[in-house]
Amino acid sequence: MSVEEAGTGLIGAIDLGGTKILSLVVDMLGEVHGVDVRPTEAHRGPNAVLRRMVDSLNAALHEAGRGPRLEAVGVAAPGPIDFEQGIVVEAPNLPGWSNVPVAELVADMMGCPTVLENDANAAAWGEFTLGAGRGSRHLVYLTVSTGIGGGLVLDGRLYRGANGGAGEIGHIPLVDDGPQCGCGARGHLEALASGTAIARRAGEVLARGGAPLLARLAAGNPPSARLVSEAAAHGDRDARAIMEEAGYHLGRGLTAVVNIFNPDHIVLGGGVMKSGDLVLRPALAEVQAYALRLQREHVRVVLAALEDRSGALGAAMLARELVTNAGQFNDET
Amino acid sequence: MSVEEAGTGLIGAIDLGGTKILSLVVDMLGEVHGVDVRPTEAHRGPNAVLRRMVDSLNAALHEAGRGPRLEAVGVAAPGPIDFEQGIVVEAPNLPGWSNVPVAELVADMMGCPTVLENDANAAAWGEFTLGAGRGSRHLVYLTVSTGIGGGLVLDGRLYRGANGGAGEIGHIPLVDDGPQCGCGARGHLEALASGTAIARRAGEVLARGGAPLLARLAAGNPPSARLVSEAAAHGDRDARAIMEEAGYHLGRGLTAVVNIFNPDHIVLGGGVMKSGDLVLRPALAEVQAYALRLQREHVRVVLAALEDRSGALGAAMLARELVTNAGQFNDET
Repeated sequence: MSVEEAGTGLIGAIDLGGTKILSLVVDMLGEVHGVDVRPTEAHRGPNAVLRRMVDSLNAALHEAGRGPRLEAVGVAAPGPIDFEQGIVVEAPNLPGWSNVPVAELVADMMGCPTVLENDANAAAWGEFTLGAGRGSRHLVYLTVSTGIGGGLVLDGRLYRGANGGAGEIGHIPLVDDGPQCGCGARGHLEALASGTAIARRAGEVLARGGAPLLARLAAGNPPSARLVSEAAAHGDRDARAIMEEAGYHLGRGLTAVVNIFNPDHIVLGGGVMKSGDLVLRPALAEVQAYALRLQREHVRVVLAALEDRSGALGAAMLARELVTNAGQFNDET
Repeated sequence: MSVEEAGTGLIGAIDLGGTKILSLVVDMLGEVHGVDVRPTEAHRGPNAVLRRMVDSLNAALHEAGRGPRLEAVGVAAPGPIDFEQGIVVEAPNLPGWSNVPVAELVADMMGCPTVLENDANAAAWGEFTLGAGRGSRHLVYLTVSTGIGGGLVLDGRLYRGANGGAGEIGHIPLVDDGPQCGCGARGHLEALASGTAIARRAGEVLARGGAPLLARLAAGNPPSARLVSEAAAHGDRDARAIMEEAGYHLGRGLTAVVNIFNPDHIVLGGGVMKSGDLVLRPALAEVQAYALRLQREHVRVVLAALEDRSGALGAAMLARELVTNAGQFNDET
């Protein structure tokens, strides 16, 4: 990929979330020159949100202070998307979003080519190109957050599957007849190791009088995963057991990933991973003990390096390819 | 891929198994013109087996009766292989096979370029090019046999992972603390739905006096999965329950595959699938009930069409690409 040939233009990126919009303006090397964050105000519907997205990106561009022109824009959005058409098919956290042609609308408003990608795929691409997966060729990205999402970079290219729905690592069934998942099934990884699962489990433990420190911190409110992590870090043994159990199941999910993909990198992002060793250590122990030897010996399991920007930076790097016409679309070297 | 340009030459294929060697001679379209099957005699070690492989292929060539020349040879072999180097790294069922440079040795003996592929990958490629997956672009192949193996065709290309170890679908953990798997872990798909798992479960049921028809058929011997299937087909309710339980877990494994890969085809081969609806129906019911909607609605789950020849035919079609220089290696259309 020849970055030099592409000039010194700027790339815009918008990461559209259920609660906030993050916009970045970066150069061709991924260096950030402008940032804007604002609430999504999702209740106002797609048209209003799209205007907010463009306003946000223009604010980031203003901060960059290098003239009004972007060479391309990348948008990361939740939910199943149609990559070829640039359409958000549906977005569970965004009321009214059904078959919204985001790429076309943003391209019209910004006056430059625009690419749309699923947020987990964009984050995988961000970590692959600029983050913890640099130098990788086969990378699986997991975000362990409210839910558990995934993105796959296989043979150096984003793998989207037949309908843009590949990478739903959170929906591997790991426990027969286990707790109910958001998708309706039982015992999926997401129902065992996500922030939601940790909070639910903590609620059960509190209801039977356990986790005294957590109970004090929660002060009668439903506990968040972050609070469980905090209580565990301060010595609450029940809270620690909840985090370790989540880590154990995460490790079983990672074992599946290692055995199925034989990746060289697994990158873990999302809020739950901020609890660090509490979850990571039991997860890695499980992989070490039970993944197949060949596959296990060649994989590096690492934390994401780009924090909350992996999706936006990945979208930017996908947009860069619209300009350089390289990498994702024709890189067969 | 332009088959016409490649002439009307012949391609050889050898499928090396733990108990038998299957050789085929096919034309560029995959039509079979010569066949040879003989016992592997694995106990005689790599050198003797390699000579048997070449003898077998020459016998198939003789049957084809179109002169002595092959344009290329494809070899399918068990165990982890090094595709780039053409080396069988290890093969659990073949005593003494460790780092055997099969491609080079066969190429020398046959006097033509030779490609080596893992047997499950070769079978996936066979079904993709000539079998139940024709017209597919994203295909997952599973062989449900003594063990459970898999091969992945993603974006129209075989996906091998970082070390040739991708596709170990049999080693997804599905049941927490379930029955022991051959790999040492517990509750893997292979330990729940393979022929070995069915036979083990049947042994337990017989030991406590169940499955009367199966007991009669087994006549005191340890029951095989095929015998369990036969007893179930003839009305043995315990035997039927064993097959259905295997199908249920197979369906949970398929649910993981559907959610992770979003494939357009899943092709099921191997001896256990010969039991047909006994296993297939509960498996499909599970996918229908619990796979994610978008992914589920776009997948076709079908039985393999090439029977015991999918591996050999896949190896032949990989070898064809050595001649046509198309498809797998540079097909980016």
